[in-house]
Amino acid sequence: MDILKFKQKSILQQLRSSYQPKLPAALQGPVKAVEGAATQSAGDQEDIKKLFPCTYGLPELTFVRDENAASIHSDEPCNVGVILSGGQAPGGHNVICGIFDGIKALNENSRLYGFLMGPEGLIEHDYKELTREIIDEYRNCGGFDMIGSGRTKLEKHEQFEKGLEIIMQLGIKAIVIIGGDDSNTNAAVLAEYYKAKNVPVQVIGVPKTIDGDLKNEKVEISFGFDTATKLYSELIGNVERDCNSAKKYWHFIKLMGRSASHIALECALQTQPNYCVIGEEVAAKGMYLDDVVNDIARVVAARAAKGRNYGTVLIPEGLVEFMPAMRKLIDELNDILAENPNFSKLHLDEQRDFVLSKLSPENKRRFETLPPTVARQLTLDRDPHGNVQLSLIETEKLLSEMVAKKLQKMKDEGRFVGKFKTQHHFFGYEGRCADPSNFDADYCYALGFNATMLINAGATGYMSAIRHLAKPATEWEAGGIPITMMMNMEHRNGKQKPVIKKALVDLNGKPFQVFANSRELWAKETCYIYPGPIQYFGSPEMCDQTSCTLYYEQGGK
Amino acid sequence: MDILKFKQKSILQQLRSSYQPKLPAALQGPVKAVEGAATQSAGDQEDIKKLFPCTYGLPELTFVRDENAASIHSDEPCNVGVILSGGQAPGGHNVICGIFDGIKALNENSRLYGFLMGPEGLIEHDYKELTREIIDEYRNCGGFDMIGSGRTKLEKHEQFEKGLEIIMQLGIKAIVIIGGDDSNTNAAVLAEYYKAKNVPVQVIGVPKTIDGDLKNEKVEISFGFDTATKLYSELIGNVERDCNSAKKYWHFIKLMGRSASHIALECALQTQPNYCVIGEEVAAKGMYLDDVVNDIARVVAARAAKGRNYGTVLIPEGLVEFMPAMRKLIDELNDILAENPNFSKLHLDEQRDFVLSKLSPENKRRFETLPPTVARQLTLDRDPHGNVQLSLIETEKLLSEMVAKKLQKMKDEGRFVGKFKTQHHFFGYEGRCADPSNFDADYCYALGFNATMLINAGATGYMSAIRHLAKPATEWEAGGIPITMMMNMEHRNGKQKPVIKKALVDLNGKPFQVFANSRELWAKETCYIYPGPIQYFGSPEMCDQTSCTLYYEQGGK
Repeated sequence: MDILKFKQKSILQQLRSSYQPKLPAALQGPVKAVEGAATQSAGDQEDIKKLFPCTYGLPELTFVRDENAASIHSDEPCNVGVILSGGQAPGGHNVICGIFDGIKALNENSRLYGFLMGPEGLIEHDYKELTREIIDEYRNCGGFDMIGSGRTKLEKHEQFEKGLEIIMQLGIKAIVIIGGDDSNTNAAVLAEYYKAKNVPVQVIGVPKTIDGDLKNEKVEISFGFDTATKLYSELIGNVERDCNSAKKYWHFIKLMGRSASHIALECALQTQPNYCVIGEEVAAKGMYLDDVVNDIARVVAARAAKGRNYGTVLIPEGLVEFMPAMRKLIDELNDILAENPNFSKLHLDEQRDFVLSKLSPENKRRFETLPPTVARQLTLDRDPHGNVQLSLIETEKLLSEMVAKKLQKMKDEGRFVGKFKTQHHFFGYEGRCADPSNFDADYCYALGFNATMLINAGATGYMSAIRHLAKPATEWEAGGIPITMMMNMEHRNGKQKPVIKKALVDLNGKPFQVFANSRELWAKETCYIYPGPIQYFGSPEMCDQTSCTLYYEQGGK
Repeated sequence: MDILKFKQKSILQQLRSSYQPKLPAALQGPVKAVEGAATQSAGDQEDIKKLFPCTYGLPELTFVRDENAASIHSDEPCNVGVILSGGQAPGGHNVICGIFDGIKALNENSRLYGFLMGPEGLIEHDYKELTREIIDEYRNCGGFDMIGSGRTKLEKHEQFEKGLEIIMQLGIKAIVIIGGDDSNTNAAVLAEYYKAKNVPVQVIGVPKTIDGDLKNEKVEISFGFDTATKLYSELIGNVERDCNSAKKYWHFIKLMGRSASHIALECALQTQPNYCVIGEEVAAKGMYLDDVVNDIARVVAARAAKGRNYGTVLIPEGLVEFMPAMRKLIDELNDILAENPNFSKLHLDEQRDFVLSKLSPENKRRFETLPPTVARQLTLDRDPHGNVQLSLIETEKLLSEMVAKKLQKMKDEGRFVGKFKTQHHFFGYEGRCADPSNFDADYCYALGFNATMLINAGATGYMSAIRHLAKPATEWEAGGIPITMMMNMEHRNGKQKPVIKKALVDLNGKPFQVFANSRELWAKETCYIYPGPIQYFGSPEMCDQTSCTLYYEQGGK
């Protein structure tokens, strides 16, 4: 009976498992890799070249149908180890399913090993073989629970050596690391290490993150972004509809996405809210918190003048990081608290007075303008290193409280005549493990299957790349990009390190431009769009739609 | 161009609008009403009878196919006015569409008027005619934005008279009030008033609320409950999957639903979390906050002992109301603050000391055990009458902080060996305006169409009733229940008033029993179910599934 309970699945889980992800035409048979020209890193070429002597400058690879080969079959089994690294993103399981189907297509005796709970599993030799039975349980479903994920950084030689032991023991030909920018950087370092050591172990990276900040001219989007933004847009649409029905609240919605505002921008394009803050724009214009607050208050007052005392505001999680003034305040707070370990024993009012007595005049003024609850958060909630945890700051409440204060002032001056009642939301964890949309299910499966083809072609230090994603899946292009090609040197923890450049929202790009051209209309009027829940069955027009960001980036009007 | 932007709709909105809701077979042609025996109110029969001399004791009505009638056509137009009252619930638009199609089937010259922003629209003569063009824009979609909703209570004779003016002016034969228990009570009062006055205006109620607390032996469920709980279960499932992938957080999830725990129970049955608090059980067992905290801590510790430092806890919004001890504390706090208007001018620490100095010893002890942030919430956030706003208490944080404290104590005693990191969520507004599930789309359309048949049969003071809801829609039974039949007398704002009895979770009912029999297994193991998003296209098994509550209540195993 216990077993039965464990096996129980929702009807959608059962029906969705039989979906067959679409593969690019190029991957639907024997392939050959066409080599492009030698590549360069995105920046600091000399430094990167020195750090990656064996894997620097490799050519881009593009797979085309091999008309001379009769089948994809290989005489040798192709054993692969797979690792999920970092935060969950919809589609991770399908990457693994794609790898599995790929190596089995090469040779039925190939084996797939999943290292458990992230890179830690490789180091600690904690793994399980992923049999067909296990794989079939997880096709097209969300989550990383098939093998779990973790945040251990794979960057030390001892770790690489420990990993090598189990790799050799299991006869693994290649490791596939599914992760974000840091994990893919580490994949490149690992590839270089094994190549330099001349051991026959390849390393392939797969671009994962809902945040959408792992992209560049070669990687159009990381997987998970599509599903997560569709899920958040479903919820935002529902809140907008509530807002437009009751007509009495301003909803302030914070969205996950780390520093970059890709998620907020995509959700804005999908749902047409009355306001959306884009962190990159705030930074480019050198805006202070007050400037953002004043602009939201302007929109609230303009709607109120027309009797519309309701609206929806989207706020990217990383907003505060884009405000130099806030950064300065936080840095000084960190220093003050570090120098005064007994601070936490003070009474609350004394804490505030103490902080105010220590801050520089400029930061003191800033601290005083913050709502008391937020000011308290800045001094109370600290990470294990004693630092302020930016992600814990309830920016949605911070902004709405400051807007309320501003509106009160405007009311006193006769410049605001309405009501301002608020509700707050934070959408994040709800979207990271959603069942993947058709787009992510297809994209991930192709990324995994393609990773196997890269392994079979002998590649190492490459990222699996599927492109022309705004086209139908069968027309997608498949291949591999040398990871070093995306790197430059950046200052991290006091050292110069090779890293994959994070992509911020491009203020000259089409997605932002469309948003910028529409937002005054969206602010004044009520132009909400209600995307509704992701649909898996029915017309391809509905089930296979891509994100607005991809659509606009690839020429949509 | 502006117009174009306004018209823009998501693909799902466009495709879903052509869904034809399923009608019970009995309503698919000319009907006749079969009268049952005279009815009695649920309690206080003499008092209710006195208050409703003209509408008390009416018979139940059941519609059957009228084999003698050739068509549903009526020579007279049937003009109807409709009002949405109270909080949004998925399906409201379909009730209105059902009424529209019903009166047009009776006579093509019938007109439907929507009173705007709730009962206020009737009183203020603020309305719009709902033409076919408007109706077709809103078929099968969520929200109440077609005519808006409001919370004005329709209970005074002046209001009834004001309403009557516009009703007569527009030639309206009947008013349909779509609302919760209070709004339906007011519908009965209005029906009685017009009947006593001998004006030819009928009043019909429709049972609406996501909370699921408007139900009884005659009304199986209010509309909106099905969709809202499916949406919340989608999100809970996603969070569970995240939880089971990262294996490092306990997620505390508060769910909307006012006092009763129907929503929490339904979501628990759909998603099998590790813990779910049921307010009615807490009350029945006379549990204190500490008892709930201790029980959650017990489950956390048991999982930790097996290395499972993660889990999901569901908490009903109304929990605190079910704790007599918390109610006493809040009542005393309200009194203290009312007697001390200068309280808010004190420093924070002084406020706390002041409150502690005034509270009775018993309540003082309770106040001291609360986490400081919650204790502050209890004294800071007050409604316009100066009362503590229970709905603003972040119960999810209250419980998790108290559990953390308890676990620390257990750790010191060697009874807890794990980690306890938490995340918090509140799901509410996200679900009230979701696009209705097939169940709610069908149920609401049938409720609306059926309301028209009740009007045509001359009924007033009735609630539209569709039953046997666990069966396929074509087999549903349609008819009307005298609203007085559901009433008893209750103490409200210092007076005895006739009200519809609110339904709490029945601890002897099948849904709770299934939960109670499974929960220890769900607590110990990881039995999560991931329902995924509501699907509108594809197999009926998936698209037409009813809630677990209905399924179990109507004999499912």
